Amino acid sequence: MRRVLLWLAGNAWLREHLPRFGFAKRAARRFMPGERLDDALAAGLAFQGDGIGIILTRLGEDVTSAAEADVVAAHYEEVIERLATDGIDGYVSFKLTQLGLEQDPERAYERCDRLAQRAAAHGSLVVIDMESSRLVEPTLALYERLLAAHPGSGICLQAYLRRTAADLQRLVPRHPFVRLVKGAYREPEDVAYQSPREVDASYVSLATTMLQAQASGDRVGIGLGTHDIALIDLIEAHARAVGLDRTAFEVEMLYGIRLDQQRRLAREGYRVRDLISYGEAWYPWYMRRLAERPANVVFALRQVVPW
Amino acid sequence: MRRVLLWLAGNAWLREHLPRFGFAKRAARRFMPGERLDDALAAGLAFQGDGIGIILTRLGEDVTSAAEADVVAAHYEEVIERLATDGIDGYVSFKLTQLGLEQDPERAYERCDRLAQRAAAHGSLVVIDMESSRLVEPTLALYERLLAAHPGSGICLQAYLRRTAADLQRLVPRHPFVRLVKGAYREPEDVAYQSPREVDASYVSLATTMLQAQASGDRVGIGLGTHDIALIDLIEAHARAVGLDRTAFEVEMLYGIRLDQQRRLAREGYRVRDLISYGEAWYPWYMRRLAERPANVVFALRQVVPW
Repeated sequence: MRRVLLWLAGNAWLREHLPRFGFAKRAARRFMPGERLDDALAAGLAFQGDGIGIILTRLGEDVTSAAEADVVAAHYEEVIERLATDGIDGYVSFKLTQLGLEQDPERAYERCDRLAQRAAAHGSLVVIDMESSRLVEPTLALYERLLAAHPGSGICLQAYLRRTAADLQRLVPRHPFVRLVKGAYREPEDVAYQSPREVDASYVSLATTMLQAQASGDRVGIGLGTHDIALIDLIEAHARAVGLDRTAFEVEMLYGIRLDQQRRLAREGYRVRDLISYGEAWYPWYMRRLAERPANVVFALRQVVPW
Repeated sequence: MRRVLLWLAGNAWLREHLPRFGFAKRAARRFMPGERLDDALAAGLAFQGDGIGIILTRLGEDVTSAAEADVVAAHYEEVIERLATDGIDGYVSFKLTQLGLEQDPERAYERCDRLAQRAAAHGSLVVIDMESSRLVEPTLALYERLLAAHPGSGICLQAYLRRTAADLQRLVPRHPFVRLVKGAYREPEDVAYQSPREVDASYVSLATTMLQAQASGDRVGIGLGTHDIALIDLIEAHARAVGLDRTAFEVEMLYGIRLDQQRRLAREGYRVRDLISYGEAWYPWYMRRLAERPANVVFALRQVVPW
């Protein structure tokens, strides 16, 4: 099923046509408060009451020109300002391809640098999202430069990639902020662990590495981008073992998934953020979410089919 | 099935009577070359040719008096001498209850200390095996003392125990040698992780911690007591990520299990040891081996029933 869903995620016809249908929009509401920034900000404000921060990301079409990348950058600049104005505990996260990485890495860096500057002016940060494996190297290269200029900037690393253990070692001495996720793209066997148990083990191993670094005094920010409570429990136990506590990391879950757990964790003293996506190009993103968790497919179908 | 096997392992009547039957002895040959030390040493010599070292452990009855514990200690002293005389790359591993831990911890320590001394005289070491969770604390306490007197001495830690992450942190600054196993006793939920994926994740997390310590210059010896090739691969990848290689740890597998893999790993430059058990009291140990891996039960039945 995962393969089918990932194939559907890449289907151009569906990507163009499906989101126009009302039933599809309803299904997508499972994972996003709405297509507009205002929808996302309103949801973010509501989370404040539960002591849950947010992360905002706009789901965009592929960027093919400098002009389009400038529009995306301008949009994130607006988001950064709106978060500050509305007094919401949140930051932005974006894909570098949206900022033109594949057209012109230097211009992409400049856009990124400007956003990090704006965020820093409000005491906030930016986090670079990670994409398919072929983009890891240029993304890391840009991030290292950004991190040197703007301490506290973040990046997403994917536990299913075999290279990530080495990538993390390369980043740790530079004091990164890392959102650690399992990984949701379809990658070949030689590039990524395929079995859930290997991915889980890699995930915990990477988190352990960061906690060790933190415990020995390195500034390493940790975001656990997972809905897997068993893993979070294990990592929390490890944090205690090295003399830290549950505030050593933040837990980042997607809007609409395990909200009960997000609230429980926040109540129990964990730092929790809800990652809110919005925008019109939600189709491939949505299909990857379904592929991650078969249970979500059932939920999605229930929104559409009157069982 | 695991529960049934663990219950059978604890059954006193079976423990006494089953090993007398010929068919049971044949089934046990799956996991031990024979009941006598000579059988184990002969098997050990044969492994030399494959570049595989050994670990010897005698399967004993519960010890109830100082005299019995003295007999066990004298036996291991003999084993240490025999390994040296026969020129076999090997060391001994034993349970502290066999050396009288529960009757008199001080005397148990003295026996242990003498064995470690004898081993050191031959450039070898001793490794303390781990038993059920209630014995972890006294075992660790004795080990810490032993390690201070005899650097290089080893202990077994069990990844399924929730406390092990903290135990490892306590040991690392003392430069331990740790045989890391998943754990094979039946332990309650609040004491031990129950699901294989949690145990695996804990296992890799603990191995990662030791590799990090080794990479930052601490003397920490690592024995991976597992037959799980996927985990070994993951840990090897992590070793490379921190600038070490596959000789950073040794792989320890049981006699009779995955011998093809033991040979392959040895050929590929891993340090491999085969853990050979012998002795008459093999019944509960044997049942725990079956409980670990349902495939072994099928194999064992095939030795007995002519399918």
